[in-house]
Amino acid sequence: MITRRGLLTGGAVTAAGALAGCASDTSARTLDVGSLVREVATGSRTEPFYGLHQAGVATEPQAHAVFIGFDLRPGTRKEALVRLLKLLTDDAARLTQGRPALADTEPELAANPARLTCTFGFGPGLFDAAGADSPVQPLPRFATDRLDKRWSGGDLLVQVCADDNVTVAHAVRMIVKDARSFARVRWTQRGFRSATRRNLMGQIEGTGNATDLDRAVWIGQGPLAGGTTLVLRRIRMALETWDAVDRTAREFTIGRRLDNGAPLTGVAERDEPDFAAKNRLGFPVISEYAHIRRAHVADPALRLLRRPYNYDDGLSPEGEPDAGLLFASYQADIDRQFVPIQRMLAEGDLLNEWITTIGSAVFAIPPGCAEGGWIGESLLS
Amino acid sequence: MITRRGLLTGGAVTAAGALAGCASDTSARTLDVGSLVREVATGSRTEPFYGLHQAGVATEPQAHAVFIGFDLRPGTRKEALVRLLKLLTDDAARLTQGRPALADTEPELAANPARLTCTFGFGPGLFDAAGADSPVQPLPRFATDRLDKRWSGGDLLVQVCADDNVTVAHAVRMIVKDARSFARVRWTQRGFRSATRRNLMGQIEGTGNATDLDRAVWIGQGPLAGGTTLVLRRIRMALETWDAVDRTAREFTIGRRLDNGAPLTGVAERDEPDFAAKNRLGFPVISEYAHIRRAHVADPALRLLRRPYNYDDGLSPEGEPDAGLLFASYQADIDRQFVPIQRMLAEGDLLNEWITTIGSAVFAIPPGCAEGGWIGESLLS
Ligand code: HEM
Ligand code: HEM
Repeated sequence: MITRRGLLTGGAVTAAGALAGCASDTSARTLDVGSLVREVATGSRTEPFYGLHQAGVATEPQAHAVFIGFDLRPGTRKEALVRLLKLLTDDAARLTQGRPALADTEPELAANPARLTCTFGFGPGLFDAAGADSPVQPLPRFATDRLDKRWSGGDLLVQVCADDNVTVAHAVRMIVKDARSFARVRWTQRGFRSATRRNLMGQIEGTGNATDLDRAVWIGQGPLAGGTTLVLRRIRMALETWDAVDRTAREFTIGRRLDNGAPLTGVAERDEPDFAAKNRLGFPVISEYAHIRRAHVADPALRLLRRPYNYDDGLSPEGEPDAGLLFASYQADIDRQFVPIQRMLAEGDLLNEWITTIGSAVFAIPPGCAEGGWIGESLLS
Repeated sequence: MITRRGLLTGGAVTAAGALAGCASDTSARTLDVGSLVREVATGSRTEPFYGLHQAGVATEPQAHAVFIGFDLRPGTRKEALVRLLKLLTDDAARLTQGRPALADTEPELAANPARLTCTFGFGPGLFDAAGADSPVQPLPRFATDRLDKRWSGGDLLVQVCADDNVTVAHAVRMIVKDARSFARVRWTQRGFRSATRRNLMGQIEGTGNATDLDRAVWIGQGPLAGGTTLVLRRIRMALETWDAVDRTAREFTIGRRLDNGAPLTGVAERDEPDFAAKNRLGFPVISEYAHIRRAHVADPALRLLRRPYNYDDGLSPEGEPDAGLLFASYQADIDRQFVPIQRMLAEGDLLNEWITTIGSAVFAIPPGCAEGGWIGESLLS
């Protein structure tokens, strides 16, 4: 959709600048507005599939995502996994470029890629099945976790994102068909993002994200070089009680303002938080227990790339929403990056009063591949 | 989003024409492209709330919808209903225009209306509770129905549509809070539409819709004048078996081509189907049992305004999608318009092989109101 990247990066966009911003670099350029409008109208914008990295990580987040966790069927060993991954790579390579999958039963639905990405991840169980050492391990337990098996674990992850939900549904179907004889669906989690970057608590997200992806996200060496890891946490929000809290308390909880996302020590979203600043009473302006202070790490190489989606799965009879965040973070090293932050949060984040982690899964995200290759090649062959 | 109305009405859109098409009439006009792009980027486009008709019926369908069916709490009588409807009218009047609801706990989320509409409907039980005769009755049973109570009935309907899912979630929350002391949530149904107008079976939808809304949709006289009725059917698609059928059979089933939606007797989507045409063997080109023939009525005043949304609620362990259509049709008279068509379909639609109606509800949709008024005024005061 036209609302992505260029359109969202600033308040004072001009039409030409905004339209040019749809390209993946942000330099201004002349553009045939007519053809751009047609492209937007038909959802024909594509994200590249082949490359050093898998798409769907550094990709500007699309509006919709489905995460599927699979359990491998007993007896699925290395050879079968290679066959499976060749199939899935082929599906993704075609579908993301707006071409039907092999034996696509609804080729028309493939013609609207809408920035589709299909990203594959390997859980510890997949490495076991392949007779290999797993580069990822289940997370340690955190005191605040209330994990439900229903939303946790999984041997194989498929993450499907696009700006059109019918495109997502079609890609999921094609992929699930090919995966079916190798794996069973363990869970499906569906999420959405707003063009405003606001979550269901009303906060703007993404400000303090990793920017040095080569150090923070992409793995530099070994069989996972060019890959990364994903931690997916299903975090329920107690929106009912959150609503009962006043604005000051909410802003104090995060350490940022609700209206524009500025740190409590600044005026604009991108202002650096001043964690040393004190108020007249001598207390820190950004509390010791504020979410952004607990989660902050000074070293850019240790930041996380968060790419979360909201979920909203309906209402209880009394009208309480079953809603929250599909927190997805990508980092080169889970133990060095995610775990220490999650520990800080579990120990004293004010936000814990209103959030509960009810699902958790970790996956190695293999590097991308070149034409003729397949996802997982460096790990399984 | 920019992908609606103007952008979708034709293949050969020009930028100016397409952008101009975002306004509610389709006449060309000069437009400040810069401000339009900003408007799209911030989701600030609004649909009018006040008027002769409620919004959300003739409104160009938004990308997302949530339908909520409520049961009134025992003892909720006319006076309470009037209070409830005044509250909900006020919520809708504000939220749809990008303003926070009274005592809105997340005012920032209200600032992105994204073409939000909130449409209210009254089921037979609401009229009972108010001590009035109901203008709508539960549908007769159709042989093909397999109704689940979980998706059927309801005293009060709230239909919330917008181009941004966070906007939908926020409006739903504000409305549910106000409704809570009067009513319990019976069901919630969430749907989405593609900019391509294709459903999950791959077909283009909407071609044969009612166009003479003053005769087919809006009620002309009586307390419901300016209003209409809604039939909401949850129709599951057996996508697994549908996928096993070849293209010829699928096109034969509907009576239209998959690639462009043209009738089997024509070349373009908008060509009139020729139901009399025969093939070389003397059989009708569009089968007697084809969906569009069974559903077709010659009289424009008897057509339906269909405004369906797709639903996709996850996967079984074996990978079968729980997916289908939230079929929503608006018509002035359910008995004269919907029932005969549904009867024709139940008796012999080829499509029945792959679809099952598992939920059903009917609602009177009161007319719109003027500033200072409230939805339901003509029925309850
Ligand atoms: C429902 C759960 C959560 C909500 C609503 C939430 C919300 C937020 C918000 C509003 C910000 C400030 C804007 C931004 O930088 O994105 C933020 C920052 C951050 N969050 Fe969370 N968060 C949640 C869970 C988590 C979890 C589970 C982690 C990691 C374990 C995490 C790590 C971070 C980090 C690293 C930052 C950036 C801190 C910095 O400025 O350096 N968050 N979060
Ligand atoms: C999953 C269920 C259904 C699917 C997939 C479906 C699909 C379609 C398609 C592809 C068309 C042709 C394009 C168009 O005019 O929109 C169509 C036409 C139509 N359908 Fe359905 N439909 C479904 C259920 C229903 C139901 C339940 C009704 C009413 C009881 C209905 C009434 C109509 C009507 C009135 C037309 C237009 C016929 C004409 O050209 O005059 N459909 N449908």
